[in-house]
Amino acid sequence: MQLSRLIGPELEQILRENPSEVRELLDEIHPADFADIVRELDDQRAGALLVELPPDFAAQVFEHLEEPQQETLAEEMGLEHTARLTSHMDADDRADFFSVLPPAIGAPLLETLEKVDPEAAEEVEELSRWPDTSAGGLMTTELVSVRPGLTIGQAIAEVRRRAHEVDAVDRVFVVADGGHLEGTLELLELLRAGETVPVSDVMQRNVISVPPELDQEEVADVLAKYDLVTLPVVDQRGTLLGVITSDDILDVVREEHEEDVQRMGAVQPIDEGYFAASLGVYVRKRAPWLLVLFVGGFFTTTAMRRFDGALAAVASLSFYLPLLISAGGNSGSQSSTLVIRALATGDIEARDWHRVLLRELAQGLILGSMLAALGATRVLASGDGLELALVVAATLVCIVVMGCVVGGMMPLALSRLGLDPATSSTPFIATLVDVLGIVIYLGLATLLLEAVARAHPVVGVP
Amino acid sequence: MQLSRLIGPELEQILRENPSEVRELLDEIHPADFADIVRELDDQRAGALLVELPPDFAAQVFEHLEEPQQETLAEEMGLEHTARLTSHMDADDRADFFSVLPPAIGAPLLETLEKVDPEAAEEVEELSRWPDTSAGGLMTTELVSVRPGLTIGQAIAEVRRRAHEVDAVDRVFVVADGGHLEGTLELLELLRAGETVPVSDVMQRNVISVPPELDQEEVADVLAKYDLVTLPVVDQRGTLLGVITSDDILDVVREEHEEDVQRMGAVQPIDEGYFAASLGVYVRKRAPWLLVLFVGGFFTTTAMRRFDGALAAVASLSFYLPLLISAGGNSGSQSSTLVIRALATGDIEARDWHRVLLRELAQGLILGSMLAALGATRVLASGDGLELALVVAATLVCIVVMGCVVGGMMPLALSRLGLDPATSSTPFIATLVDVLGIVIYLGLATLLLEAVARAHPVVGVP
Repeated sequence: MQLSRLIGPELEQILRENPSEVRELLDEIHPADFADIVRELDDQRAGALLVELPPDFAAQVFEHLEEPQQETLAEEMGLEHTARLTSHMDADDRADFFSVLPPAIGAPLLETLEKVDPEAAEEVEELSRWPDTSAGGLMTTELVSVRPGLTIGQAIAEVRRRAHEVDAVDRVFVVADGGHLEGTLELLELLRAGETVPVSDVMQRNVISVPPELDQEEVADVLAKYDLVTLPVVDQRGTLLGVITSDDILDVVREEHEEDVQRMGAVQPIDEGYFAASLGVYVRKRAPWLLVLFVGGFFTTTAMRRFDGALAAVASLSFYLPLLISAGGNSGSQSSTLVIRALATGDIEARDWHRVLLRELAQGLILGSMLAALGATRVLASGDGLELALVVAATLVCIVVMGCVVGGMMPLALSRLGLDPATSSTPFIATLVDVLGIVIYLGLATLLLEAVARAHPVVGVP
Repeated sequence: MQLSRLIGPELEQILRENPSEVRELLDEIHPADFADIVRELDDQRAGALLVELPPDFAAQVFEHLEEPQQETLAEEMGLEHTARLTSHMDADDRADFFSVLPPAIGAPLLETLEKVDPEAAEEVEELSRWPDTSAGGLMTTELVSVRPGLTIGQAIAEVRRRAHEVDAVDRVFVVADGGHLEGTLELLELLRAGETVPVSDVMQRNVISVPPELDQEEVADVLAKYDLVTLPVVDQRGTLLGVITSDDILDVVREEHEEDVQRMGAVQPIDEGYFAASLGVYVRKRAPWLLVLFVGGFFTTTAMRRFDGALAAVASLSFYLPLLISAGGNSGSQSSTLVIRALATGDIEARDWHRVLLRELAQGLILGSMLAALGATRVLASGDGLELALVVAATLVCIVVMGCVVGGMMPLALSRLGLDPATSSTPFIATLVDVLGIVIYLGLATLLLEAVARAHPVVGVP
């Protein structure tokens, strides 16, 4: 960070005055590291710096920046310079960039790009046909393809010809005249086979591919299962549309991880760094869940009110309330976590609900009994009496079973209704478990109180 | 799944009777898909099947199986067959397999491997020097290296020679006589350059590498930042030790994601699939956190007892208790989620605590005020009186601020003490926030009651 404060402002000046010197320096710096410097500069300097860099390098640096900053810099640099820079970007990164621009900037930029580099503009339109989070949204159209009739030697010549524009070449695609993917050749195969051997003799015919509509999480599953570096995207007729590279999948998996973790903490996912995001962003991202959970919690007030008799009669009853409710909440949280992950990895499907129910009941009984023993001991040790100890113990078994069942079943029910179980589970489970916990505890307490009253009618309990 | 039930038992028989037929079939099935079939078979059949397969293919299938099943199958197949199978595995997968075997099985197996394939046994010992979750634990020693003095043509010849044993070749490493990594050559470069050109003219000298002790999460960061497919592992003196491939990093990132999510749900990470894990496993993985959180919750009982006066005096006080405590818990959960992620990504360091504190205070005040308005409205609408509405409103602001501050500061404090913030935060935060929430609410209520009593001394409030 200090490096950029020292170097940043001067870099721009040096680039303008001694461009050849700096270009030598740029050979030593990886674009990802240069992006670290640019990230720290204010927008005006950053924009001016990018404009002075050789467009190829500038494009690579730009690809490493976050989307909010990309948008700001596009405005700083102006249409002409931005269009020129995007024409040097990889097709998939370029399409991603255009997809996040608001139409007010995106439309004129695309027009300018059409004049500067019509092929690049066409690629953008082609790739923007699919949702961002699908295979089509992740792929690039820049790949090396050869006809089946060629020889290995001719294929190698094609690779040499295209190498400077295609970013990651780990294999060559053998594509028939209509666009149909016939097979693939790893670079290793090109090196190993004789130059005159026909490509169709050596190519791998069983090619693992994905359709363009496939969701990115499932694309990641395919890449991970078959240990692929690249994954071709092929439509229903077998036409090769593009290829997805493993580095993009790694980025996707890491992004999804961050979003999942934030959602589990009841926060709407935040793109920017911790200190970069403004107070307004934090409030906007946190308020929704906090308010929803709070309003959901109103039901607990209603439940408490119903049992005000028992609460008034036995003072020590309320002492254990927070403890018991949280036991239910923690059980529910554990169960929902396990079921949600199992749903995501395909271990469970919604129709397995009865198997899940049995497991949650069993686990709830065992875990609830453990807590019941501890809880009853606590009540007795505090001198709050045997009846309360029994109520607490019975409550704990019921509450933990209830928590496990609700926590385990809710994601399945929501998934069956077409909602995303990971995001929508939390409020439903939290509210339901709290309310049911109160009802179970105070309900059992009331039953016991009434039983005691019937056994000792003169005590005069209301 | 049904496929394996239909085919599995017969496959083994077919392999024994018509091996050549089946070998043709095996060319069509990817080892990862074959592994799906093996996964569904019982251990005895699975072991028998693996033994009948060509060892190369069997090894690839074995690499795709989960560690618990690998261990069971090793016992099924016996030392001889297992050793032979492992000698055909990739060096990194073989080392991983040995690292999870209990010594009772692992030691004799390694001895058997030494007789069958001494080089493989040596690789296992070399790779097991580093922790499983480090760069050294992830890498493989199988790579293609050439001396700096060679030409491109000679390098290509070396690639051809080694290609069948090295799994993923995307580049060639240029290594001097002492083992020092001088540079790397992408396969693309080999194809492009003239055959007589010296390797040292074309190679990339600035090689991004990692030390063997580096934790796997940081290795993933490096691979993701520079969009690498392979990442060499180099010691302090610059000696090339091995290489990490992107598919292994993708597996690591996905595994870490699963573990993080389970930890956040207060569950010890579970390796096996949802239905594969036994009841005993679930209880063992869930009980620890459930019990710790429960015992931590005992403090809430103590806190409640301290305020039994207020609770007895104002019946409606207890109605709002669960709601208010959960508001604190949710705020704390949000703050800790955000801070833990920021710590993990390097956005925040422990010494930034004062900046984090200010942000949490600000967010807590704003979010708390929102909830206070809602809460006061609820109290008034329920007819519980203005004083209680004021107490609830004041409590909410304080509780949310407290929740945010505790949730934000706890991970930093734990990280400063050398503990892992992600795992250890939950119990501390949950307990602290609940107890402080009770103290704040009932404390404020008591203060107000006393103020009312002083204002109206004849009311006779205890």
